[in-house]
Amino acid sequence: MSRVVFLNGEYKDYNSALTHVEDRGYQFADGVYEVFSVRNSKLIDYDGHLKRLTRSLKELKIKYPINIKSILFHMRNIIRKNLIVDGLIYLQITRGVAKRDFKFPKHSISTITIIGNNIPSNEYEMIFEKGINVVTTRDLRWKRVDIKSLNLLAPVLAKQFANENNAQEAWLIDDDGFVTEGSSSNAWVIIGKTVYTRPVSSSILNGITRKTLIKGLNKHGYNFKERKFNIKDIRRSKEAYITSATQYVMPVVKVDNKKIGDGKVGKFAKIFKDIYLESVQLKS
Amino acid sequence: MSRVVFLNGEYKDYNSALTHVEDRGYQFADGVYEVFSVRNSKLIDYDGHLKRLTRSLKELKIKYPINIKSILFHMRNIIRKNLIVDGLIYLQITRGVAKRDFKFPKHSISTITIIGNNIPSNEYEMIFEKGINVVTTRDLRWKRVDIKSLNLLAPVLAKQFANENNAQEAWLIDDDGFVTEGSSSNAWVIIGKTVYTRPVSSSILNGITRKTLIKGLNKHGYNFKERKFNIKDIRRSKEAYITSATQYVMPVVKVDNKKIGDGKVGKFAKIFKDIYLESVQLKS
Repeated sequence: MSRVVFLNGEYKDYNSALTHVEDRGYQFADGVYEVFSVRNSKLIDYDGHLKRLTRSLKELKIKYPINIKSILFHMRNIIRKNLIVDGLIYLQITRGVAKRDFKFPKHSISTITIIGNNIPSNEYEMIFEKGINVVTTRDLRWKRVDIKSLNLLAPVLAKQFANENNAQEAWLIDDDGFVTEGSSSNAWVIIGKTVYTRPVSSSILNGITRKTLIKGLNKHGYNFKERKFNIKDIRRSKEAYITSATQYVMPVVKVDNKKIGDGKVGKFAKIFKDIYLESVQLKS
Repeated sequence: MSRVVFLNGEYKDYNSALTHVEDRGYQFADGVYEVFSVRNSKLIDYDGHLKRLTRSLKELKIKYPINIKSILFHMRNIIRKNLIVDGLIYLQITRGVAKRDFKFPKHSISTITIIGNNIPSNEYEMIFEKGINVVTTRDLRWKRVDIKSLNLLAPVLAKQFANENNAQEAWLIDDDGFVTEGSSSNAWVIIGKTVYTRPVSSSILNGITRKTLIKGLNKHGYNFKERKFNIKDIRRSKEAYITSATQYVMPVVKVDNKKIGDGKVGKFAKIFKDIYLESVQLKS
């Protein structure tokens, strides 16, 4: 069975999932997206992602093409039609097709795309066991990264920079020398007995995995603080990790080619991953 | 005859000009573009635009899908096939289609799109006679706007803000209170006997019309300085205008609802427009 994509109300063969060259998503990055993890054919932690999607659309004044219940229905169909056990769902909504003009078109119908990917269940575990390398690079992004939009060229360049430097993620450094977040994840360090991640603002995306993990940390009584950290702080951290919808909690063993702690996967990354997965399994 | 679009080597009916939903231009704004003015069925000032295109592609390490001579050939075909007398050519090149992943794909074929639009020749003159209103708004763009990329959501929001405030363009204000440029044009003011526009850096796009006009101003002996200006400077300017490929030199009569000079189209805007059009007609 070939892969199936949901596009504007139709289920299309992957190769036939086409949109117009004057889709505003294609000419202006004028759209938003969410990535959902799928485990045992179920959407993980989806409520938070759908709430954030609603917020992103509202900030950009893009209309839902269909209601949220229908979106959820079609996402689940994509899981089923593509026989996804473990993997992800990518959901994108743009302002739709219109003659090219920067300002919003008077009339346009939002374009919705839902794509599903199977990812072998052991892939995450294999990466987790080794941990990942991170490099730091200047945060070149625009000033509304709290909106999960398609304006992603800066993260693309950052991730490519990581890739060219034997790393799996890039941590972005703001003009004051502090880490904002990863190119597609939130950044965390453990210093002394306290877990730190940067407070939410328009400088970072309000991570859903981040939020769920914070609840879990508080529930289990860990010392946790929302505070910015810089490269010096990273140097003295015992452990570091990232969070994202598809990577859950992923340990960081090197930053800029320097070991974090003893350079091995730390014990808290394991505990926090379990805390996270426990929380979302209770929810789903 | 229906409109024709050039897409990856084929001439397509406008409605059939479709690209895949996993084109990186659609998911990541991972592509570049240029807009060329067309007058009397000829491309205006195209050499500078093609050079800038080459630079943008190089900065992003995107490959030309076909060589520049072929692109020029197809742009001229689009002018002919669409019977364009006055109007514009929109040229876009993205990194192509690949399974979604932030880092560059190992193998992908760049997607090229060429779209032509007819614009009635009197439209520009009608707007010129009245001049345009400008509003100022915070520059939210990313830090590599010297690359003419598809990462355009901030200019989209700025232009929409202008539109909602009875203005045709937004001037973007940096963190120090200076104008960087317009959302899709360069910004100029005349204070005393001197013409000012901001120097080129990674904070503005190196405008082709800007560059050609500067040559013309120097040739005709006008006082001209590349220098930043802020809202105070705008308040004491006698004239203001914008430059862009399709708007040439366009007078600004109000900024933030306050008149520039006497609120009418100034004499230098007219002279400079003629200087610009003279320069490009000598070239083409």
